[in-house]
Amino acid sequence: MAHIALEEGVPGIVSAFGFRPETAKPMRELAEILLRGPSTLTSAEREAIAAVVSNGNECRFCQLSHSAAAAEHRGGRDADYKWIEEVKANPDAADVSPKLRALLQIALKVREGGKKVTRDDIAAARAQGATDLEIHDTVLIAAAFSMYNRYVDGLATWQPEDMAAYRPMGKMMAHEGYVRRAPEPVGAGSR
Amino acid sequence: MAHIALEEGVPGIVSAFGFRPETAKPMRELAEILLRGPSTLTSAEREAIAAVVSNGNECRFCQLSHSAAAAEHRGGRDADYKWIEEVKANPDAADVSPKLRALLQIALKVREGGKKVTRDDIAAARAQGATDLEIHDTVLIAAAFSMYNRYVDGLATWQPEDMAAYRPMGKMMAHEGYVRRAPEPVGAGSR
Repeated sequence: MAHIALEEGVPGIVSAFGFRPETAKPMRELAEILLRGPSTLTSAEREAIAAVVSNGNECRFCQLSHSAAAAEHRGGRDADYKWIEEVKANPDAADVSPKLRALLQIALKVREGGKKVTRDDIAAARAQGATDLEIHDTVLIAAAFSMYNRYVDGLATWQPEDMAAYRPMGKMMAHEGYVRRAPEPVGAGSR
Repeated sequence: MAHIALEEGVPGIVSAFGFRPETAKPMRELAEILLRGPSTLTSAEREAIAAVVSNGNECRFCQLSHSAAAAEHRGGRDADYKWIEEVKANPDAADVSPKLRALLQIALKVREGGKKVTRDDIAAARAQGATDLEIHDTVLIAAAFSMYNRYVDGLATWQPEDMAAYRPMGKMMAHEGYVRRAPEPVGAGSR
């Protein structure tokens, strides 16, 4: 049971967002910009950063849902789900670009603490072609998931055990995004 | 020097916000709601939670600026600055309400990791009259500063050493807030 009265049967951060819509709004917007906004990193790459950080923080809801989103951005095949599992298990050995590998190292340092990021970590990412904006967004994705993970687990939200529950979530996150659309006005169309 | 090309002489998170205004907007809004929005916790209490978490994360810019904001919310006297130093040094011995003391314990657990928060921590806060919304906001303030702290230090932003630099910042944070007002339209007033 969650630490506070969250809606039952609603998983992870969704239950916390429902409890406090005022704070949900900027938190959803931040995720939308970082993970789906215009970027020279693909959304699959950015979701992989989110999944790797969440996995390090042992937040089941966050790591499985963002793993699913990463896989769905690549096409949602079993091979895509296998890929993100390999990235989380060992970013150094997984099939990722040298640039993403260097950025994942920065993200894992940020997860531990901002001061852990060294000039050498930054130089290694730059040597693989990372831009200032890509480094910025990597740091902020890792920092933001240090927040989302703590929010989800600090309230003891309900989190499904089975990966099967996360596939439809990943599809929605990848293809519809993080910002709730306003409902259609009544009578707005013929439908 | 910062890890990326941030504007020189602009301190801490302000330089990062200037680099990426798209992400600054929701991050500023979240701080405004959590620290200055309607709440049964005073803004001084909420800024104290932010300062204590930031102090635990050894983020100088965050802990000193939010300490100053906490003190300014109480009147900005030397005694108020002394108070927040005592709260950071030892929340258990400082002059805070039993409810805030229990909430600070939850915040310090969230700083370490969401799963560190126990049912006993929650029960102790409830026993001092903490509501679900106060517990929620405490968890989210601590989670959000786990983000802001990592963002500020993960980019190696410039951070003034001297507390004197933080007093005017604290005044602005306390009395003007975190959300930039749009500039007045040209010719909107006689001033």
